[in-house]
Amino acid sequence: MSSPHAPARQRLRDLGIVPGILPSGPHNAITDVPDVRVGHETVIIDPNIRTGVTAILPHPGNLFEERVPAGVAVGNGFGKFVGLTQVQELGELETPVLLTNTLSVAPVMQGLLEWTLVRNPQARSVNAVVGETNDGVVNDIRARVLTPGHALRALGAAREGPVPEGCVGAGTGTVAFGWKGGMGTSSRVLPPTLGGYTVGVLVQVNFGGVLQVAGLPVGQLTGQYSLREALDRGDADGSVVFIIATDAPLSDRNLRRLAVRSFLGLGRTGSAMTNGSGDYALAFSTALPVRRTPERRSAAWTPLDLPNDLVSPLFQAVIEGAEEAVLNALCMAEPMETYDGRRIDALPLDLLVDAWAAASRDELPRRRAGPLPGV
Amino acid sequence: MSSPHAPARQRLRDLGIVPGILPSGPHNAITDVPDVRVGHETVIIDPNIRTGVTAILPHPGNLFEERVPAGVAVGNGFGKFVGLTQVQELGELETPVLLTNTLSVAPVMQGLLEWTLVRNPQARSVNAVVGETNDGVVNDIRARVLTPGHALRALGAAREGPVPEGCVGAGTGTVAFGWKGGMGTSSRVLPPTLGGYTVGVLVQVNFGGVLQVAGLPVGQLTGQYSLREALDRGDADGSVVFIIATDAPLSDRNLRRLAVRSFLGLGRTGSAMTNGSGDYALAFSTALPVRRTPERRSAAWTPLDLPNDLVSPLFQAVIEGAEEAVLNALCMAEPMETYDGRRIDALPLDLLVDAWAAASRDELPRRRAGPLPGV
Amino acid sequence: MSSPHAPARQRLRDLGIVPGILPSGPHNAITDVPDVRVGHETVIIDPNIRTGVTAILPHPGNLFEERVPAGVAVGNGFGKFVGLTQVQELGELETPVLLTNTLSVAPVMQGLLEWTLVRNPQARSVNAVVGETNDGVVNDIRARVLTPGHALRALGAAREGPVPEGCVGAGTGTVAFGWKGGMGTSSRVLPPTLGGYTVGVLVQVNFGGVLQVAGLPVGQLTGQYSLREALDRGDADGSVVFIIATDAPLSDRNLRRLAVRSFLGLGRTGSAMTNGSGDYALAFSTALPVRRTPERRSAAWTPLDLPNDLVSPLFQAVIEGAEEAVLNALCMAEPMETYDGRRIDALPLDLLVDAWAAASRDELPRRRAGPLPGV
Amino acid sequence: MSSPHAPARQRLRDLGIVPGILPSGPHNAITDVPDVRVGHETVIIDPNIRTGVTAILPHPGNLFEERVPAGVAVGNGFGKFVGLTQVQELGELETPVLLTNTLSVAPVMQGLLEWTLVRNPQARSVNAVVGETNDGVVNDIRARVLTPGHALRALGAAREGPVPEGCVGAGTGTVAFGWKGGMGTSSRVLPPTLGGYTVGVLVQVNFGGVLQVAGLPVGQLTGQYSLREALDRGDADGSVVFIIATDAPLSDRNLRRLAVRSFLGLGRTGSAMTNGSGDYALAFSTALPVRRTPERRSAAWTPLDLPNDLVSPLFQAVIEGAEEAVLNALCMAEPMETYDGRRIDALPLDLLVDAWAAASRDELPRRRAGPLPGV
Repeated sequence: MSSPHAPARQRLRDLGIVPGILPSGPHNAITDVPDVRVGHETVIIDPNIRTGVTAILPHPGNLFEERVPAGVAVGNGFGKFVGLTQVQELGELETPVLLTNTLSVAPVMQGLLEWTLVRNPQARSVNAVVGETNDGVVNDIRARVLTPGHALRALGAAREGPVPEGCVGAGTGTVAFGWKGGMGTSSRVLPPTLGGYTVGVLVQVNFGGVLQVAGLPVGQLTGQYSLREALDRGDADGSVVFIIATDAPLSDRNLRRLAVRSFLGLGRTGSAMTNGSGDYALAFSTALPVRRTPERRSAAWTPLDLPNDLVSPLFQAVIEGAEEAVLNALCMAEPMETYDGRRIDALPLDLLVDAWAAASRDELPRRRAGPLPGV
Repeated sequence: MSSPHAPARQRLRDLGIVPGILPSGPHNAITDVPDVRVGHETVIIDPNIRTGVTAILPHPGNLFEERVPAGVAVGNGFGKFVGLTQVQELGELETPVLLTNTLSVAPVMQGLLEWTLVRNPQARSVNAVVGETNDGVVNDIRARVLTPGHALRALGAAREGPVPEGCVGAGTGTVAFGWKGGMGTSSRVLPPTLGGYTVGVLVQVNFGGVLQVAGLPVGQLTGQYSLREALDRGDADGSVVFIIATDAPLSDRNLRRLAVRSFLGLGRTGSAMTNGSGDYALAFSTALPVRRTPERRSAAWTPLDLPNDLVSPLFQAVIEGAEEAVLNALCMAEPMETYDGRRIDALPLDLLVDAWAAASRDELPRRRAGPLPGV
Repeated sequence: MSSPHAPARQRLRDLGIVPGILPSGPHNAITDVPDVRVGHETVIIDPNIRTGVTAILPHPGNLFEERVPAGVAVGNGFGKFVGLTQVQELGELETPVLLTNTLSVAPVMQGLLEWTLVRNPQARSVNAVVGETNDGVVNDIRARVLTPGHALRALGAAREGPVPEGCVGAGTGTVAFGWKGGMGTSSRVLPPTLGGYTVGVLVQVNFGGVLQVAGLPVGQLTGQYSLREALDRGDADGSVVFIIATDAPLSDRNLRRLAVRSFLGLGRTGSAMTNGSGDYALAFSTALPVRRTPERRSAAWTPLDLPNDLVSPLFQAVIEGAEEAVLNALCMAEPMETYDGRRIDALPLDLLVDAWAAASRDELPRRRAGPLPGV
Repeated sequence: MSSPHAPARQRLRDLGIVPGILPSGPHNAITDVPDVRVGHETVIIDPNIRTGVTAILPHPGNLFEERVPAGVAVGNGFGKFVGLTQVQELGELETPVLLTNTLSVAPVMQGLLEWTLVRNPQARSVNAVVGETNDGVVNDIRARVLTPGHALRALGAAREGPVPEGCVGAGTGTVAFGWKGGMGTSSRVLPPTLGGYTVGVLVQVNFGGVLQVAGLPVGQLTGQYSLREALDRGDADGSVVFIIATDAPLSDRNLRRLAVRSFLGLGRTGSAMTNGSGDYALAFSTALPVRRTPERRSAAWTPLDLPNDLVSPLFQAVIEGAEEAVLNALCMAEPMETYDGRRIDALPLDLLVDAWAAASRDELPRRRAGPLPGV
């Protein structure tokens, strides 16, 4: 599928380009938040199928029993995100989150339901949470080959540690800024004085705009941005789903506020959040003292709660993590032929490196590489 | 399924009990709004399956092409309503609405998708709208026998004219106020001086509370109300989905406001909108001058718009239609045995008639049967 | 102002009419929730001024320091409710709540600000919460005589114990269902098995519809309902603000859900929630373990939290309390001449008593007066 | 107040730094949208008062009679924005918008009310819209010197044409990114093939984060960003209010969507949308065919409506306009002494110019200065 001569793909940070002021975690991934697991099921069947499913598990236990507080935010509701209102109403997640393509939400939801029902013989109501973006430029989306089984395989593939990025799972067939998109991830760790919490972001990248990479006007440099066509046609497709994890003990209300901040990171990459874009964010906390176990759901209990006044550093972490996760998706995605024989190029990494050098940033104070000022 | 000796069921109005001050349309049904069609697929397989699918078509044309403005409201978001955010964002409905049981949203969504895709060969993104309530008291809900085919059959069964009520379609296995629930419908027609518009309501009734019938305290009279147990247990299940149609030329914003008012009608029946209840309402307009055809979606156009100052009578119509639709569901539902061998009784109609008589309402001014005062 | 020959006004319950199934607290008032105080400043200056301010204090301490969790709900946003978004965002109340007339929000807000600033010399940002309804039928609202001083007097008048109802404070000049409106209050107490919590409701009643009193179709019986004119004119004025207090240890999210339920109680009274109605609800908890003290706002803490599964009985309590509070306002309001010389009658209490008797309710099982079934 | 030796301030574009891809209008101001007027009332009273009021008039007529459709968005609700829910519910603006400081909302609201009442002798309900940010770092905010008269003067000062920026009106005492903030404005004009519409943005800039100027990491270069302290303290103050005008004929729903996009532009400047920030956006359309005149509010009418599929270029325009408006505020603001004797520096413009040059941007393709590619 991918050209054998394509240059090796690297994550943004490995190119020496580091957005933001906060340090990342060891894997620079959502899995830096303890207990979180990610699994991809990539489905490529030549000549026309390039799609998949990605699973995010907040923890390895029985989530339906041991729920996690969660909040959601809708940037632009042109999407088919399933399970949203119950998360809003109850402030909790009772299934893993699955991501897939627009026309495969139903079978993936079905798989998630089956996965949950078999583990919970008494369950009679399950709020499956499934997000999607439209991979129909690359993938023959109307062929709808995904089955509940693919969802089960993504769930089964979920692992701790490094997270595969680019053309995998739900990002297999996505496109962003006219370049090949994909899945991306990043994380941030707060200094101990600010709580030492970790925030991880995973993103399905499939949208347009005028690409900006850590401030570099790459869209303008290359003249390749989907908005260019969009401005001609008056429309632009694309969507994005952010999944945000943290070990900070947050209420569902403050988790929703975290989710909202991911759209600021999205703005930094140059998204125009076009009419046709389904832009969603979901944030959950894995902290043990906020998990909603059966006992805690049956009598007054005492969750740990980080108050409003202490959440701002987490907001900054989400913004930076969201920005870098989007860029990692672009940097790690390999070029791909579309189902109808066109080629979607990968973002040229040498261009990023050259632009970064040309921007003389090497001579700028290297605050980003050092410790936080004043910490 | 139903007892052969069960008394014949009748609609509330046929018992002489008429809630509200506005007259109903000829069928006293959502189909009094021109172009609207309703279809039920009832699935009863002894001994354990009592469920189904109900389809509501705003008009008989290609809805994906000729969209209708729509608005949604969430009373209590403990539900799996699919397609909500896109209706909110774009203010329109591009598929029929299907209703079913909680664990069958995925196959029903799949059926709706297939129905739409085959009619629209170019469609690559479809916002299927599916609502549900949990029929798991009566139906062996975990058996999940519904398939996309059942959704297609409900769509295929859609008809104008009288709408079957009670234990049909998505109401086959529902329960309300401790009695057998089901599907219900009602309509209201405004006097010509107020525009002469019709408002129709269809409802899937599956919730608890203390039943009140046109003001009669039936729940207290009978001592049978699910809240009684709920107050003991501290919980109560149940849900409700209202679908509201009108031929008034309304913007999506004012349609959302119509949807909100259905919850006032719900309150009048005695619902407590408990924690476990998924309470949703969706309203659409069938007026030709507000339909969003391909031409109208591709250039500035001029929809007809009933302004804010003129919508209040429509609000009253929704409230009355919602109340009576709920009560029709109860009045038309027949008793049913549950999948695990218990019996859910039907609301005793003679009790309603007796209570109505005992309340000496016959001697009260019969304003309800006559023309509106002052019109 | 009020006719010397007007019949003595009584609360609904004192007429023998008791809506709902839950018992009320000792005062049947919002002040049955410990620590809550209510104060009225009534401003009647013949011939044209009939207005005022009502203050609700969640507790007698420094609320800006010791905040209470709170949630708000908007039934119909045609109103000037001030302070809403910060309550939504932070989930807390940092000032008392004041109610007044539509054109006096600014001076009342100013008074609340001054009251708070003088008590908190370091405060530089204060989220004053002020609600309103339009008393312009009775009161010469454009005269705008209210000053910050009136707000201070309402705050200073705040007391525990019985709450004056009817034509007092912010209800001095209101009208409802074509009758004289006013302030009303009611409460409910859950049985010990359901937590034993108290819910209190205070309401500013100023809206239209077709009055229903504990199920009695009073609007239809009397033919006097503002909707009658509304249906002719296509419009209807009016608004309602519910303030809900509880000692249950609830999160801000569940307090918002309580606030939503007040609209079900509103529906039971016959409101049509017309276009011109500003319908708002705010709920707060006074429980000590959820108060947000300075220490709790500066480090992770452990609020007590009643989980989702246990809140439904509180919902029922809000519905009943909201319904009865509205009816108490009508029952306690005395007739009044309007600023332009018309007379607004009080709801005839003998009519209620007669209708209640005519409805033979005395012969119905008196479950309402006895203990809860099964408790 | 400002140092006589301070370097002359210039707008960003005059420094040769141009964010975005769309051209600006003739004034690069919100007043490029025909009919829009802006007025500032600046109140500086040594030694401690530096505050003011800014007025935005959608058109010079009687707005209460000839209303404009409008939508609002809340990025972070820690603010005292007045009038929000009625704009949401009715989708319209019936007064000008005033901006001021946090503790002066009440007198400014009062002034706006008086201004409207005197022009509309029949008005008995007025939805005054007032936004604010907290200028308490520079201004002795607790002194509260602003009166209704200042609001009237801002309204009276409203003019077409160039808009004063920096330390004027409601921006007199604001601070952003640790530098002196203020009022800023910018505009974008779509090419004729995309409708030729104009979008204008006015902003009150008073927030923190890590400043980024058209992609330049100024916050990191200078090490001066308020988040630095914020990350130490775990908190950061600040707020922003965007007012967006367009002559595109948009529904209130799509105007809300425009408002949402301003937060993407905010993200591009480096805002962290901290806990303490009140971040609001309001968008309105001045197009004649969407204005809600008395006739149009009294019968079904036919507004012109740009459909969903054509709004994306307007989204891009809002993003770029919001970003540049924020930066213009910083570039035009002069240094100022605070009420307690500290000095808030102005953003050094030479630093921007040097960084822009150092970034070798002169050698990058000058697409921004030329026509849009492909147009």
